[in-house]
Parts: sequence; C-alpha cells; structure tokens
Amino acid sequence: MIRCAVVGGAGYIGGELLRILTGHPSADLVATTSRRLRGRQIDGAHPNLRGRTRLAFVSDEELDQDGPYDVLFLATPHRETMRRMPEFLGLAATVVDLSGDFRLRDPAVYADYYGVDHAAPDLIGSFTTGVPELHREELQVASRISVPGCMANAGILALTPLAEAGLIHGVLTVDARTGSSGAGATAGAENLHAERSGALRVFAPTRHRHEAEIAQATGLPVRMTATGVEAVRGVQLLCKARLAEGADERAIRSAYRDRYADEHFVRVVAHRRGLHRFPDAKILSGSNFCDVGFALDAGSTTVTVIAALDNLVKGGAGNAVQCMNIRHGRPEREGLEFVGLHPN
Amino acid sequence: MIRCAVVGGAGYIGGELLRILTGHPSADLVATTSRRLRGRQIDGAHPNLRGRTRLAFVSDEELDQDGPYDVLFLATPHRETMRRMPEFLGLAATVVDLSGDFRLRDPAVYADYYGVDHAAPDLIGSFTTGVPELHREELQVASRISVPGCMANAGILALTPLAEAGLIHGVLTVDARTGSSGAGATAGAENLHAERSGALRVFAPTRHRHEAEIAQATGLPVRMTATGVEAVRGVQLLCKARLAEGADERAIRSAYRDRYADEHFVRVVAHRRGLHRFPDAKILSGSNFCDVGFALDAGSTTVTVIAALDNLVKGGAGNAVQCMNIRHGRPEREGLEFVGLHPN
Amino acid sequence: MIRCAVVGGAGYIGGELLRILTGHPSADLVATTSRRLRGRQIDGAHPNLRGRTRLAFVSDEELDQDGPYDVLFLATPHRETMRRMPEFLGLAATVVDLSGDFRLRDPAVYADYYGVDHAAPDLIGSFTTGVPELHREELQVASRISVPGCMANAGILALTPLAEAGLIHGVLTVDARTGSSGAGATAGAENLHAERSGALRVFAPTRHRHEAEIAQATGLPVRMTATGVEAVRGVQLLCKARLAEGADERAIRSAYRDRYADEHFVRVVAHRRGLHRFPDAKILSGSNFCDVGFALDAGSTTVTVIAALDNLVKGGAGNAVQCMNIRHGRPEREGLEFVGLHPN
Amino acid sequence: MIRCAVVGGAGYIGGELLRILTGHPSADLVATTSRRLRGRQIDGAHPNLRGRTRLAFVSDEELDQDGPYDVLFLATPHRETMRRMPEFLGLAATVVDLSGDFRLRDPAVYADYYGVDHAAPDLIGSFTTGVPELHREELQVASRISVPGCMANAGILALTPLAEAGLIHGVLTVDARTGSSGAGATAGAENLHAERSGALRVFAPTRHRHEAEIAQATGLPVRMTATGVEAVRGVQLLCKARLAEGADERAIRSAYRDRYADEHFVRVVAHRRGLHRFPDAKILSGSNFCDVGFALDAGSTTVTVIAALDNLVKGGAGNAVQCMNIRHGRPEREGLEFVGLHPN
Repeated sequence: MIRCAVVGGAGYIGGELLRILTGHPSADLVATTSRRLRGRQIDGAHPNLRGRTRLAFVSDEELDQDGPYDVLFLATPHRETMRRMPEFLGLAATVVDLSGDFRLRDPAVYADYYGVDHAAPDLIGSFTTGVPELHREELQVASRISVPGCMANAGILALTPLAEAGLIHGVLTVDARTGSSGAGATAGAENLHAERSGALRVFAPTRHRHEAEIAQATGLPVRMTATGVEAVRGVQLLCKARLAEGADERAIRSAYRDRYADEHFVRVVAHRRGLHRFPDAKILSGSNFCDVGFALDAGSTTVTVIAALDNLVKGGAGNAVQCMNIRHGRPEREGLEFVGLHPN
Repeated sequence: MIRCAVVGGAGYIGGELLRILTGHPSADLVATTSRRLRGRQIDGAHPNLRGRTRLAFVSDEELDQDGPYDVLFLATPHRETMRRMPEFLGLAATVVDLSGDFRLRDPAVYADYYGVDHAAPDLIGSFTTGVPELHREELQVASRISVPGCMANAGILALTPLAEAGLIHGVLTVDARTGSSGAGATAGAENLHAERSGALRVFAPTRHRHEAEIAQATGLPVRMTATGVEAVRGVQLLCKARLAEGADERAIRSAYRDRYADEHFVRVVAHRRGLHRFPDAKILSGSNFCDVGFALDAGSTTVTVIAALDNLVKGGAGNAVQCMNIRHGRPEREGLEFVGLHPN
Repeated sequence: MIRCAVVGGAGYIGGELLRILTGHPSADLVATTSRRLRGRQIDGAHPNLRGRTRLAFVSDEELDQDGPYDVLFLATPHRETMRRMPEFLGLAATVVDLSGDFRLRDPAVYADYYGVDHAAPDLIGSFTTGVPELHREELQVASRISVPGCMANAGILALTPLAEAGLIHGVLTVDARTGSSGAGATAGAENLHAERSGALRVFAPTRHRHEAEIAQATGLPVRMTATGVEAVRGVQLLCKARLAEGADERAIRSAYRDRYADEHFVRVVAHRRGLHRFPDAKILSGSNFCDVGFALDAGSTTVTVIAALDNLVKGGAGNAVQCMNIRHGRPEREGLEFVGLHPN
Repeated sequence: MIRCAVVGGAGYIGGELLRILTGHPSADLVATTSRRLRGRQIDGAHPNLRGRTRLAFVSDEELDQDGPYDVLFLATPHRETMRRMPEFLGLAATVVDLSGDFRLRDPAVYADYYGVDHAAPDLIGSFTTGVPELHREELQVASRISVPGCMANAGILALTPLAEAGLIHGVLTVDARTGSSGAGATAGAENLHAERSGALRVFAPTRHRHEAEIAQATGLPVRMTATGVEAVRGVQLLCKARLAEGADERAIRSAYRDRYADEHFVRVVAHRRGLHRFPDAKILSGSNFCDVGFALDAGSTTVTVIAALDNLVKGGAGNAVQCMNIRHGRPEREGLEFVGLHPN
C-alpha cells in the first residue's frame, strides 16, 4: 500500500484527492490537514464521503508526527507552498504539488505572472511536470512533481502535439471557460450564487497565470482570456492557431493519433456531426479524461482546437493520482476508472 | 411627484426598489443609504441601472438632512428596524417597512419565531399589512405599512380566499421553494455558487418565520417547510389542505374569482393541460404578478394550491411600490407594468 | 461471469445500465437492443462510454439469437413490457424489469393509475419487488424482479420503517421533485431546454403513478404532487405525516437505525446544522445511495421526512444491479462503489 | 398609433415582438400569424402575456385581409422569407425582416453561407441594415429593413468603431457564446434539457452564418466559433484583433466614445475591477442594451473586445422595434425602457 497524506484537505481540490484516494485499492490515506477544521470528520466538509471514511482533519504538527509518507499531496495556496516546500520535502519520498508555485521554470516569468519573487528558485528545476501523457518516463522516477493548472493542462494536452509537429505557428488565441469550483471553497462576493449563476464573467481578459504554462509547454506566444461560465465543475478551451505550410486535417489527425492512440485518458473527439462531436466538460464530471478535438476552416489557414476536462480531476486531483500510480509502479488507471455520466 | 427614499439600498430588495422607483413616472427617488458604499454610485452595486441614474449612496446622517420624505422604504435588517422605527417615523409621512419586524401582530408570536423580544410592541398595532388585494381600503390612508415576507405573500394570497370562504379546514401543509436571492447579498458558505448551484436544500424543515404570517392571515395552523432550489429569483408554494364539507372545484374557482376577478396582479392559473397549466416563477422574474392555481384529488378530499411570484418584486419591492401607489392616489399599476419574459 | 443483456439500451435508464454493467467486474454485458440505433456503436448514444466498450446496438431478433442470458434487464416502455413479458421470461434465468408494469400488485389499481387493463395479470404475483433493503431474502432466489419507480423507491425507503413501526398514521403528504432525465430521452416541447430550464413545473398535481407504489408499500393513503425542478438527475421527496401517540424523535431515529444501520446504500442524514444537514440529490449523482432524513415540528405532532437519490441509479439502474448482485451471490456493492461528487 | 402585424408569432422572436408591441404606447398590434396555433389565444404560447392581451393567432389569409399595415415584422424562417417577400412588401408601408435572407448584400456570399441560391437577389439592395447606431439616417426613411442576426449585431456594434477608425487589422477571431433560445421553439434532440443543460457545445466551429455579417460590416476577415452555453437568453462575444500601429487604450476608448457617447442602448463597460467590469448577458435579459467592453494585453499588440446582449431583444425584437421607432418618428426608446434585472 502507498502511504499517502494530503495537505489542505478542506478545499475542493483537497476534497477530490480524498475522494479518489479513499477509493484507491493501493492507497492508504493516513492523514489530511485543515487548520480550520482540525479534529472534525472529513465527511462534514465533503458529504459525498459519508460512510466511506471515518478520517478526521489533523493539524500541521500532527501531520509531521505521522510522517514520513510515501506520497505527500500539496493542495496548499501558492506562496505558502514555496515557503514551506523544504519542510514538505522532508516529510515524504514523493511530493506532488498541486499549487502554482513550481509550474513555471523561469523565476522571472513566475514573478511576472504571480506578482511576487519566487521564494525557492533553486528548487524549481528539481520538479517534474505532472503530465503523464508527455512526461511518463521522468515521472516513473520523479520524487518532486508539479501538476499543471486545470486550464493549463487542457491547453498543454491539446496544443503540444501540434506545436511539436510544427503544424501550427504564430500566436495562439485561447478562450478558456471554467466552472465555479475553480475559484475554491472560500466564500466571496464573486462566488455568491445570485451573482455567479448564469454568468458569463470575463474575469481575466489577459494575463491569466495558466497562459504562461501553455506558452512554456508549446514554445509559442499565447493570448488567453478566461471566462467563468455556469458550471460547478468543468473547463473547456477553445484555441485558434495559424496552420503551418502544408498542414492539413490529415496531418493534424495523425499528430494526435501518434501522441494519444495508446493514451487511455486523452480521447480525440472530432466528429462530422452529432450532439457530442466535440469535447464538452458536461459529460466528464468526476472522470479523469481530457477530450481533445479540432476543426479546420474552409481555407485550411487556421485550426480551432477544443479541449475539455473536469478541473478538479484531470485538471488536478485525478491527474496527481495518475502521477502517483506511475511513480509507484501501479497500473496507471488504478482508482481512476469512473467514466463520467450521461446525461448529467 | 412622490418624494421617496430607500434605507438600505445596497442589498437585493433595496436594489429592486431602486430599479422600480427610478423607472416610476410619479416617483422622485431622492436618496438611498448604504454604510459600506456611501459616496459610491448605485450602478456599481446594481449594474442594471447603468445609464438610468447618477445617484450615489448616502449615509444615515445625510438621509436625515435630506428629509422629510413622502415615502420612506425600509430595506433594513429586522431587529435594527424595530429599534430605529421611531427615528424612521419622524422622517416621512408614509413608512413602508420591508423587514420582518412589524409583520406579526402578536409580540409573543414574534418572540417565538424571531427568538428575541419585540423592541417596540406598542407600534405593532399601528401598521397596516401591505397586501393591496386584501387591504386596499386601509392602505389608501395608511401611514405605516408592513409588507409581508416573500413566501408569506404567496401563501396569504393563495390561501386566504379559501380560508375566508370556509372551504378548507385543519392543518395547512406548505412546501415553499425559493431562489438564492432571498438570502440576500451577503456572501456566506451557504450561498457559495458551488454549494448552492443545483441544490435542493431543505434549510428550514419547520418553523420558518413566514409560516407564522400565513397562519396569522388564514387563522389556520400551518406546517411549512422551506427548500432552496436552483434559481436566483422566484418563490413557489405548494399547499395542501383538507376540503370542508361540500367544497368542490366549482366552489374553489368561485372563491378565487370573487376575490381576484378585478385584480390585475393576481392571476388564477389552473388549466387542464399545457406546459404552463400551473403557476411557475420562471416566467415571473421582474414582474409584479402572483399567479395562483389549484387542483383537487380524485376524491375531492384535499386541494393542492400552487402559488408563484418573484420574491424581490411581488414578494417585496414591487408589492411595496404598489402600496405606495394606493396610498398616494396613483394608478395601482404605475411603474409596475413589466410582464415578465418567456422563455427565460 | 454473469451473462447480461439490456433491452432498450438507447434511453437514459438503459444507458445507465450500460455504464454500470460495463464497469462491473462480474458482469459480462453481451448485448443491448435499440430499434432506432441498431448496428450503431453504443458510445454514439452514450458518449461517456467512449473508450469503455466497442459494443453496438442489436435488434430484438439478434437478442433472441444470442440468448439465453443469466440476467435480462428490461428498460422498455410500460404496456410493451407486459405484452412481451412471456417472451422475455423465456430468454433469461432472471428478468429484472425497470418498467412500471409489474410494480403494482392489484390489477385494479394498475388500471386506475395507468389507464389500461393489465395484459398479464396472472404474472404480477410472480414478481419480487426490487428493494434490497426491504426484500433481500426473497431477492436471493427471485427469478422475476420488478424495480420500483425512481420517486417510489425514495418514498418506500423513507416511509416504510416508520409505517411498519406504527409511528405514523393517516394521510401521507408527499411533495416530489424530479430532474429532467426522469422524462426520458425523447425530445418534446415539455423537455425543450428553454422551457424546462429553471422551471418549477407542477406536472402531476395528483395521481402520479409512483404515488400508488408508496401507498402499496406503506399501507397508508398518499397524496403526492410531482414537480419538475432544475436538474438533470436527482429526485428529492418531502413527506409529511402525523405522528402516532407517543412517537417522538428518539423513536423515529431508532426505527431508521434498526432498519438501516447495516445498509450501505441507505444513509440517515438528519443533523442539527450545516449545509448538508438533510438529504440533497445534488451530491448523489452517479451514486447508488438513497439518503433519508427527518425533522419533527415543535409540538411533535407531525414529522417531515426528506429523501433523495439519483433517479437513474438508486432510482433505477443501480438498484437493479444491486438486485442482480444479491440474486447471483455477488458482494452487494460490487460495481456500485462510486460515491458521488462534491461540489457538483 | 402605428398599425403593426407580426408574421410568425408563435416562436421566440415572434413572442418577444408581441411582448414589446403590446406594451408599446404608440403601437397598435393588429394581427399575428401561426399556422399551427391559428385561432388560439397568444397567451397560450406566451404565458407571460396573460392579462396583457386577448389577441389570437390568425392565418396568412386573415393577415392579408386585415392589411395593409404601417409595419410588418417578419419572424419567418429564411428561404420562406425571400420567396414570400414580394407578397410581404405589398402588405405594409414598412417591412422589418428578422430572418437571415436579406442581411448579406452579396448573393454569392449568401449562397456560400446558406447553401442555397438567393430567390430574390434583385431585392437585396433595397434593404437597409437595421442597426440604428450605425444607420440611423437611412432608417428614418427606410421602407425595407433587415435586422442583423443576434450574434452578428453584437459583433457589428463592438467591432465597427475600431475597424472604421483603422485601429485594428488582420483576421478577427470571434468566440461567440449563445443561450438555447437562439435555436428557436422547435423541440429536437439538440435542445433536450438533459442534453443541453450545463453544456458547452461547440455547434459551429467554423462558418457560422453570422460570421459573414460581421465580415461584411467591418471589411475584415472573421474566424468565428459558436458555442451553446447554459443560458436561455443571452449572447456574449469575445473578439481578438491585432492593433494597428499606434493604436492604444486611449485611442480605442475614444473610438467607442465618439461612436456611442450619445447612444442610449450601447454602453461601454470596461472597468479596472469589480464583478461587473465587462459585459455579461446575465444582467441584460429583457433589455435592449448591447454592452461593449475591451482590454489590451500588456504589450498592446492585441485587443480583446467583449460584447453582450439579449439575443431576443437587442439581438432581434427590441432592435427591430427601435428601427420602427426611428422610421415612424417616435422617441427611439419608446416601449424599450426595461433596464434588466440584478441579480437575475
């Protein structure tokens, strides 16, 4: 059994880690922390876990005492994460960070997008990017893993195959839509139901942090806008790129097939017709899939790429557990078999 | 022009008063207060008013200085309202209270349902209940008006005709459903979009305060349960009552017709078939209608009464302005002509 | 392996059976029928099954040829089901019927609620009611199982313990709320998104068919009203009953504990406070749980019982598979371990 | 009074015309047609009009007999509209067409986007584009008016000022989001609530017909993708364009101010912060506003333009009535004063 702990278990990403790990046949969830809820049953914060576990939240001190762990998952805020990273690294053989602090390799870019200097620039280089479909080999031996942001992971999986194959060039236009759970479990006017329900809120017209991750992965400039849409879970990206000389539909389909033919969790969804011809997060809730699709305009000068995933699963907790499975020699799909619901 | 002011203009009921009064041909909205937003334009809090008004929020002191007013609308919290009522009464010829403090005539019942002794029991008797369809004559001369709660108004309009006609008896079972705007504009975990979206939350299984208002109006015992449903605006009540000896469909329809045949804002909606055969708040958003319908079971032993309204309009601000129109000799529908949207 | 087939696999209940059976370690899904989609991949109709199966829909004739089966699930329309039942019984050792045709034991009651005489009254008595928590022993040897309706199952599980213990008496008032998937996958004006979205549609003020099932199970008269609410999945029932002499909160809690303490799929949810103090279908999507809660009014004269489940799972397909597990000696939870999502 | 008739009054655009015209002080709505509902009260199809009118649907023949009209509104399907246009022109002094048939000036472009040759190419040139903010003078004397598509109108109003001022160049990327009412009132699998609810459905990755209208108005190539989002009403466009040499935030703000400073129905919404800093259709339901906003990226190389409107009002019926007001010398805002709701 893999001895696991989750730092920051009261939030939505933390709760999703708890849901997946308590149902994972090879994982032994030993502890999870919450300062606010210390001593309280976790099913009070996460009612879907009623009857699944009797675990209670512990303090940071208790976490230390119960250590060391095989895997420590960090669902902690950025800034705090980089400050405490040395402490975390001492607690577990493998640290899987779900915060934003170790996603960007260039401290200058980090400072630019996060508005603060990085507190542990020397550690950045030691983290492996937690994208199994693109970095499986490194992940098999990685002791420090940084999982991408939810929108970033969709963009990285959707655009990297085309960028690497040289099929697209120039500026990437990315329109990202996200559900409200991406904003976390803290109440604020921006998440008040009456304000958020049915909204199409452009909350980041430019400079969203996940933009920098997609640019880093693809090597192309990215112009991303993020809009909050009516959904609790789910991210969908609509990307437009100029096609390179000679790039056509067949070449693009091949690029995706070459990359993802054997990948269980990335499905190419690009049909001629039907209600479900392109990726839609609506049917992915709770699943670890990232669906990727595309369409060319008549003149084949631009390609529209569509990607969708559940921001809390393939965009966070599920992706992190997939990394754990790889790192600890478990079947990659273990504990992640839920296929999603239709209708939903 | 009727010189009006709104105390507590930053909330949802306050905002709705501002929307209606700024569009009312006979109303001159002079001032509205907000401690938090003092000095800020009201269209910052209520973006639907952009271009409609340049008014800014004022402090309580500024409100006093600009007085007296013809009509002062109170969108203030209960407890504060009864404490400050003497001050408010000195500020305007007519006070229209939208808080809960002067709805219940019996201080003992108030204490029972609000968990605090009434601070101005001597004033309770001087308020007229703001239900135009049932108290029009008193309202024509009332200087102190207390508007019912949103769910209470639906229940009072739906059940009083049957109770007064002696067509029902015994315990009234009331299942009330309400949208999230009824909880107000203050952010809290209970109103976090991710928690509230799609919820069917039984937040008051028994003893909701509006239950006491319906009992007071009908003279019958009421067992009400309140559930938060997926909606921003809207209240729908489903009521079940035992039929009195000899009461049948014709008698019930007559009772409603006698009461409401000439009432513009109460519509009897009880058809044999069709998508819209019974009242549904979905098509009432922004309108001042309360739709009332009914159905008898096969044996004609019980009647199911259905009522729907927009909690912020006929359940609050619109109903209050209708009272103002009556009190100040204006056409009752003035400023309240919006019919609602379909589809919506 | 249990050799299974699903008749009527293109609808929502059928699709949910396919989702669960393709993920069930002991089930071998051999065939599923659809006249309209014969020969088409099932993941075209149920996109959540992409990558899970390569099965295609077959005709009724092909179903016959591939028989016999260990278990035949019927997701067929009522009327057709009773007409074809003899044929179905010849195809499998165990038939699990999800239609309405064999739920009511009295042909007269069936005729009354379904508006047609029963086509196979002699077969009615041979079916066991598919409620594992109440009929486990019969189900272990049952070759003919009739699964209750979605709202009926919630009502039966919530009210039977109290009725059997003699804690309630008189008329049961049931307010049932249901999502749009309960109406099936056939497009019609009543299910047009623009009409159904955000609706609180009282589509059956009286005489809903599930009412008769609850009355049959509890032996008490039931007055049920069904309302379509804004949800795709999910059923919630709000029931009110008069308490018998001497019945109090402790007695009710004990009655539920005695019945359900060892039941994994029925959870008693009745807390003093918290967002999740009572059952809400919002967190049950995809899970096989039925959550049951209750609250007494101040005078302890009436009890309000709240029940929630996913209409397609514990209200249909999941409950049916739970019956199969019992009938075929499998662990009762096998293939039904998904706990639901929060937030969702 | 302006004598009006609506051809095709049973649909959503037709219903919205009926709502606005029955509330318009200078309009006399004489007749509206529906083949399916001939003879039926219009409030059966449009329940929000209960108590507002006793009008019933008439046949095409009855429409002819009641003519001529001052204004004939066409809410008819494309193809049928161009075939019947000569007949319509004979029925009224002013024809306002809300179909797609006379929006595109080049028959070749029409054939390309609509997949059929134009049936009345000689008439195309005689229609004035119904965008009051850009074509007011022509509209004052126009007897033939073609109102833009809902998404097109948002794009035309948002992008024309920048294109005309030469502030942008190159390909315009347009991401259009639309609610379900845009698909009309006809039931189909694509509009089934269970399928459409919560969807992010990319139904037109390229080549949406409204794309051609935006290109025609701006003179720039457009790459538009249309996505169905969770909403009944509402359109929001997110547009990205490259900035011309020397174009900066001030120049863009000036371009919008110069165009729209005196326009009541177009509001520039581009704030530094706040929940409502950019246009959102959520607060525009029922109103005739088109809100337009923008943001520049750090390097000022691209501008993101955001526009929102109610697809049935400023994207259709309201815009058409605004054209009527101009054509018939009425105050432009008459009958269109509703400001929308917040929260909603």
